[in-house]
Amino acid sequence: MITAPSRDPLEFQPHAEREHGLMLRLPALVHHAQTAPGWARILQGVNAHQVNTRDALSRLPVTRKGDLKALQDASLAAGKGPFGGLNTTQVAQLARLFMSPGPVYDPEGRGEDWWRVSRALRAAGARTGDVIHNCFSYHLTPGAWMIEGGARALGCPVIPAGSGQTEQQVQAIAALRPRIYTGTPSFLKLILDKAQETGADVSSLQLALVGGEACPPSLEAWLHEHGVSGVFQWYGTADIGMIGYQSARPSDPQRANPGLLIDEDLIVEIVRPGTGDVVAPGEVGEVVVTSFNADYPLVRFGTGDMSAVFAEPSPCGRTNLRIKGWMGRADQTTKVRGMFVHPGQVDLVVRRFPEVARARLVVEGELANDNMTLRCELRGGAVPADGLKESIADAIRDLTKLRGDVSFVAAGSLPNDGKVIEDARKYE
Amino acid sequence: MITAPSRDPLEFQPHAEREHGLMLRLPALVHHAQTAPGWARILQGVNAHQVNTRDALSRLPVTRKGDLKALQDASLAAGKGPFGGLNTTQVAQLARLFMSPGPVYDPEGRGEDWWRVSRALRAAGARTGDVIHNCFSYHLTPGAWMIEGGARALGCPVIPAGSGQTEQQVQAIAALRPRIYTGTPSFLKLILDKAQETGADVSSLQLALVGGEACPPSLEAWLHEHGVSGVFQWYGTADIGMIGYQSARPSDPQRANPGLLIDEDLIVEIVRPGTGDVVAPGEVGEVVVTSFNADYPLVRFGTGDMSAVFAEPSPCGRTNLRIKGWMGRADQTTKVRGMFVHPGQVDLVVRRFPEVARARLVVEGELANDNMTLRCELRGGAVPADGLKESIADAIRDLTKLRGDVSFVAAGSLPNDGKVIEDARKYE
Repeated sequence: MITAPSRDPLEFQPHAEREHGLMLRLPALVHHAQTAPGWARILQGVNAHQVNTRDALSRLPVTRKGDLKALQDASLAAGKGPFGGLNTTQVAQLARLFMSPGPVYDPEGRGEDWWRVSRALRAAGARTGDVIHNCFSYHLTPGAWMIEGGARALGCPVIPAGSGQTEQQVQAIAALRPRIYTGTPSFLKLILDKAQETGADVSSLQLALVGGEACPPSLEAWLHEHGVSGVFQWYGTADIGMIGYQSARPSDPQRANPGLLIDEDLIVEIVRPGTGDVVAPGEVGEVVVTSFNADYPLVRFGTGDMSAVFAEPSPCGRTNLRIKGWMGRADQTTKVRGMFVHPGQVDLVVRRFPEVARARLVVEGELANDNMTLRCELRGGAVPADGLKESIADAIRDLTKLRGDVSFVAAGSLPNDGKVIEDARKYE
Repeated sequence: MITAPSRDPLEFQPHAEREHGLMLRLPALVHHAQTAPGWARILQGVNAHQVNTRDALSRLPVTRKGDLKALQDASLAAGKGPFGGLNTTQVAQLARLFMSPGPVYDPEGRGEDWWRVSRALRAAGARTGDVIHNCFSYHLTPGAWMIEGGARALGCPVIPAGSGQTEQQVQAIAALRPRIYTGTPSFLKLILDKAQETGADVSSLQLALVGGEACPPSLEAWLHEHGVSGVFQWYGTADIGMIGYQSARPSDPQRANPGLLIDEDLIVEIVRPGTGDVVAPGEVGEVVVTSFNADYPLVRFGTGDMSAVFAEPSPCGRTNLRIKGWMGRADQTTKVRGMFVHPGQVDLVVRRFPEVARARLVVEGELANDNMTLRCELRGGAVPADGLKESIADAIRDLTKLRGDVSFVAAGSLPNDGKVIEDARKYE
């Protein structure tokens, strides 16, 4: 009989100890990653021994979710496997292979709780023996498998329900009486609606660990009103597994603390979209993850998701950093007069002018009659030097092949939403 | 790194040794089953120590697939769990809970390869590291999970493909290059058709372990012609897991020997439908399985499937009994003039007349204007005694509340298809 402990002391260690431990593990991770041909190329010339601080890490290139398809296509075309050469474990030694929309291929290794979801289940209040009704899909994509791994480690029986077949799901819940729902919050609403319609008793469902989409406060409140007293969010991706999770409030264990605690086996950075530059604490940017996974190590993997560090420590006593929830997608690539403009191009413009602290390219007007302006904050609120505006405009034309205006705004006046490119065009 | 052995010596032991071993294990199985309230009721008064021969086993009651729903409904209504009191492991200690059409609920325990499918995979030629594209559904029903358990034990990575999404499946196969397909044979045909249509290269698929439906020789030949050189069948149910499997021909390992070898952890009997009576070897009847599963033991479980023992030993050297493939459903319950007639009622009629060796109730005519005749073979081809016909007709009326005719046929003239009730009515 399995009885999993109800808490992991790692989550409660002083943050400095965690940080020290992660930094100690970094050189070995980089070294291990470099044994895979894909990472060997990306991290060419990097001395793994020297990557032992956040600062050293922040100088390594960011490999973005959006880059994976090209890496994988090249690797497949060369007959070198589906994972772009980023896997350190050979395909034959893996547990499962997935295909996510794109298509992008993802591996699962054989280690216990490979996606690290047991931590999220436990923090939400799941205990050994609790039955889980798992409504993520098991087919082709890894969502459901993340829950499977966590449930197995915790000793929770699973109803592998998948998505769809709402009526049968309600029937299964009424008979098998799971305590925990896992899946998207909107599908849980569908289930509760269907149960109300058919009169089925689904009151066994008390706790929901929801993910895969945002869970707005209105939906959370609706779920509470309909009998699911605890609604906890987790955030993960098909490449990394669990990244962040909510914990219960000490004062009310059926309610979640705001923000998402970072998993213990990851290093998370928030960077300016299109760059590898870490933003100031609290500023919105792209979630970049370094994962110590033994089969599929990731060194500065750009998720394409936006979030921000949440400064205060969690009232539950867990000491790791928290991030805000999902705040949109980082990929702000847009088309202006038929030409693609990437956040990386904006960054290249800014880099030419050390006096520019932050910038935001705003595209306005209507399609086919649009114009773009680079709004710049100067360091220390300085007054722009003569000719700076024209020099920046030249750089824009040089790097984007498009004409753009330049304006200077007060330091701190650009919105904190992580946007490097803002598309403010009218589409109606 | 897992490297599973390519053969299990158990499969090659002298059959008498296997039989001896199974009989030694029977008393403990019965005793264990009796710790579950459902089995305690079914096996009331049975002295487990005395159940140590096939003969003793054959005197125990058969619990039929068709009985499960009533058992489970009663148990659910009494708040005693979903499995009719037939599970010896509590729900909280299980790995997964399923709902199959009916609905009937099925448990999965935590043991390795719980459904015992690795034996079928190995006999078909699967080896450690072979990638499996698994097209049984993972949602609510256990089919896909049987393959999962076998693949894990053997060390084969799995693409959890599920059913449906044919186009994406073809894309996944082209990129991930699985060697083995598992699923229904008809869905494999859909995949190969789609690949041909889209020009995708799915030539990695060399071996198929098919189940869930019959695989007629024409379909098998079609699959061979379309590149899947090995097509092997297995047969299992949601309650028992793997029951029978095909092995490779020594002369041509890509072709399967006829018949299905019985799994090493089961006792299989073939009984006359509606009864617990074991038929003569070779005669068609219902497959009744006794399963040594530690979490969900089954003592004389009537699958409702028809088959027959296949007399010759397998040319592959495996020594266990073989059965023919699936030969239809045993549940021949039908309605005559608005009244249900069950195979068990036909059996009760026959039991009243020791001189009757075999009988078959044939229902003819049209709906609402139908008539039924009990065709009887007499022991040793005897001439019927005066008044026997009338006595049997009385017994029919007594037991079915329906008028039926009686006719006597030559010994051995009733077809060997396991049918106790034949519905020969015109439905057009």
